[in-house]
Amino acid sequence: MPAIVTLLSDFGSRSPYPAQMKAVLAASCDAVFIDITHDVPRHDVRTGAYLLAAVAPTTPAGTVHLAVVDPGVGTARHPLIVTGGGQFFVGPDNGLLLPAAKRLGGPRVFQMNGQGIGGEKVSTTFHGRDLFAPAAARLVAGTPPQRLGRPTTEFVDLDLGASRKNGAAVVGDVIYVDTFGNLITTIPSSTLAPDGRAVQVMIGRKRSAATLERTYGDAAPGRVVVVPGSDGLLEVAVREGNAAEHFAASQGTSVRIEALARKQR
Amino acid sequence: MPAIVTLLSDFGSRSPYPAQMKAVLAASCDAVFIDITHDVPRHDVRTGAYLLAAVAPTTPAGTVHLAVVDPGVGTARHPLIVTGGGQFFVGPDNGLLLPAAKRLGGPRVFQMNGQGIGGEKVSTTFHGRDLFAPAAARLVAGTPPQRLGRPTTEFVDLDLGASRKNGAAVVGDVIYVDTFGNLITTIPSSTLAPDGRAVQVMIGRKRSAATLERTYGDAAPGRVVVVPGSDGLLEVAVREGNAAEHFAASQGTSVRIEALARKQR
Amino acid sequence: MPAIVTLLSDFGSRSPYPAQMKAVLAASCDAVFIDITHDVPRHDVRTGAYLLAAVAPTTPAGTVHLAVVDPGVGTARHPLIVTGGGQFFVGPDNGLLLPAAKRLGGPRVFQMNGQGIGGEKVSTTFHGRDLFAPAAARLVAGTPPQRLGRPTTEFVDLDLGASRKNGAAVVGDVIYVDTFGNLITTIPSSTLAPDGRAVQVMIGRKRSAATLERTYGDAAPGRVVVVPGSDGLLEVAVREGNAAEHFAASQGTSVRIEALARKQR
Repeated sequence: MPAIVTLLSDFGSRSPYPAQMKAVLAASCDAVFIDITHDVPRHDVRTGAYLLAAVAPTTPAGTVHLAVVDPGVGTARHPLIVTGGGQFFVGPDNGLLLPAAKRLGGPRVFQMNGQGIGGEKVSTTFHGRDLFAPAAARLVAGTPPQRLGRPTTEFVDLDLGASRKNGAAVVGDVIYVDTFGNLITTIPSSTLAPDGRAVQVMIGRKRSAATLERTYGDAAPGRVVVVPGSDGLLEVAVREGNAAEHFAASQGTSVRIEALARKQR
Repeated sequence: MPAIVTLLSDFGSRSPYPAQMKAVLAASCDAVFIDITHDVPRHDVRTGAYLLAAVAPTTPAGTVHLAVVDPGVGTARHPLIVTGGGQFFVGPDNGLLLPAAKRLGGPRVFQMNGQGIGGEKVSTTFHGRDLFAPAAARLVAGTPPQRLGRPTTEFVDLDLGASRKNGAAVVGDVIYVDTFGNLITTIPSSTLAPDGRAVQVMIGRKRSAATLERTYGDAAPGRVVVVPGSDGLLEVAVREGNAAEHFAASQGTSVRIEALARKQR
Repeated sequence: MPAIVTLLSDFGSRSPYPAQMKAVLAASCDAVFIDITHDVPRHDVRTGAYLLAAVAPTTPAGTVHLAVVDPGVGTARHPLIVTGGGQFFVGPDNGLLLPAAKRLGGPRVFQMNGQGIGGEKVSTTFHGRDLFAPAAARLVAGTPPQRLGRPTTEFVDLDLGASRKNGAAVVGDVIYVDTFGNLITTIPSSTLAPDGRAVQVMIGRKRSAATLERTYGDAAPGRVVVVPGSDGLLEVAVREGNAAEHFAASQGTSVRIEALARKQR
């Protein structure tokens, strides 16, 4: 099976830059390319980090992830290789790569020197093509990361958010809004069983009655549901509607889910 | 030549879900991935079915199509494998797969049990990744569909529309509006020869004079033309304009094309 | 290493047409597909030509580029194969292919006859699938272009623009606006060294003070910078802003960059 290289950026799927990165890769290694997306909101490192961390658990050991959301390109920020769970992440030192590597386990960070690999000329505005893609190709070819950079414990870390119990409630944040307006939260699915119970949801300042369901389709159209998302995190959705619009919510909006007292029998 | 796997969904090209499906596939089979699109309008099974039926005649026998427009994910709707013309379609039992398989000929339908293949854990919200992609990988590897599901004659069928003669006119519907605003109709191209004749077109409530042409460029800019589309169906277009806007038409809008009486000599 | 086939069109990433072209290719040759984009603005040959010319220098000899921005499909315009630098370009005779081939060096043009290759039926509305993709597959398989068409010196040429010195200023045009609103100009990076100097920029009718920097991050947020772009051309950007909006600029807008007199010491 050929190696997998995933690509993620904020370059835009209308731009020539993703193709340029793939051209560099395809010219020097044999791999299957999987685009995560190139439409990360501009300079939104946090959303890029979430998407990378969502995909990495589905790819096998040996996969190389090339991720470029890089407002600091060409400045003193370092180029990194991060490893975790036998997979490799290549990109800028701004936190983008860390949540995925930490999720896979045992992250190690290597700092590249920014001078290019094998004598390629490195532009000051496009490290994705000139620095990260050649490094990714080397990793696909089996070069160990310590040959491409030096181990470091100084790097920009990033946490995607957490959740905590607060009395009868569990609180967290919206970590991602998907295409359907479903709100992926930072609250692990294991916190609340999808047993049909009624709960009260408060997203930002708006409250709503909801039920804990196994899947979207278990609720009536228009109703708010909390379901265990495919990613191990609770999602708040409106059946056949748009929860982001319903709650005027976006990334970072607070989430509070409170189980209602069971009625006395 | 490696097998071809096409992918179609309404997940959105900005979401991580298409990449997650491809990661599952790439980890367990060697195939060329061809994205049809991941930007099918949300829950629009009919448009998804049209796009799949448009592409399937261009792929060779052995191709596996993974199609997920699935408002009923996690509910009692069944996961299906459908075969036709030596190709395979994997997706939900809501009609999405049938027009393509029927177009290829000899459709057969197999119902999977929804418990997952080979012991993978199946989420309730993402059968594309957890159920359909593993099944597609098995089909690529040569597992026959009857090993993955049981033959059934009970399934949701879907017709993409038909056309009929009505006196001097032929009537049908808009089946798809393409990127350029061209209106692909349900009327076979063979119905009206592209001989330059004048016709009257009525789309919804709006009438317009038009001509039957071989191709868009045969008409003057701004003129309405009826051309034989690449898909074997008549298209109504405005040369260098947008027919969908011109006629305020969308999927399902009625179409009537009437040949004008030839003038007496 | 398998051959690379790039694809570029204005068909739209939501349409089935790019997948149909890839299906034809995948059925008859073994290649890595790299989409440049399918969201070129409709019928915008100039932008398509720019994108193709931006990517071609990053792909190796033997690469086949399938490019279809083709308002004249089905009319008398010829289908072409153009070679340059050991790479191949397939598409319509409207200038789309020439800037890329000229940039690689030694362009040669071959005119295909439009009757299809190997007896395939050619639609009048979709030469990308029926004529260009089969020709591209033949080129991947090693068929020389002179077997697919006849050499010609009559073809539509296209220049992407030039720049010239005008006293202390250098003038050119905006050749492309990227996803971030950065303005890629026709002025070679070698014209002005990125030495931190102050310059005056005039884009269309709007003037602005700017500095010549190595990269975007060298300027303060909100400031206008001129940087050497990744493509060998000067870019005008607003740090963490949108230069296209700032200057109300689009493709073809004039650009004038004037070095300010150094102050006397």
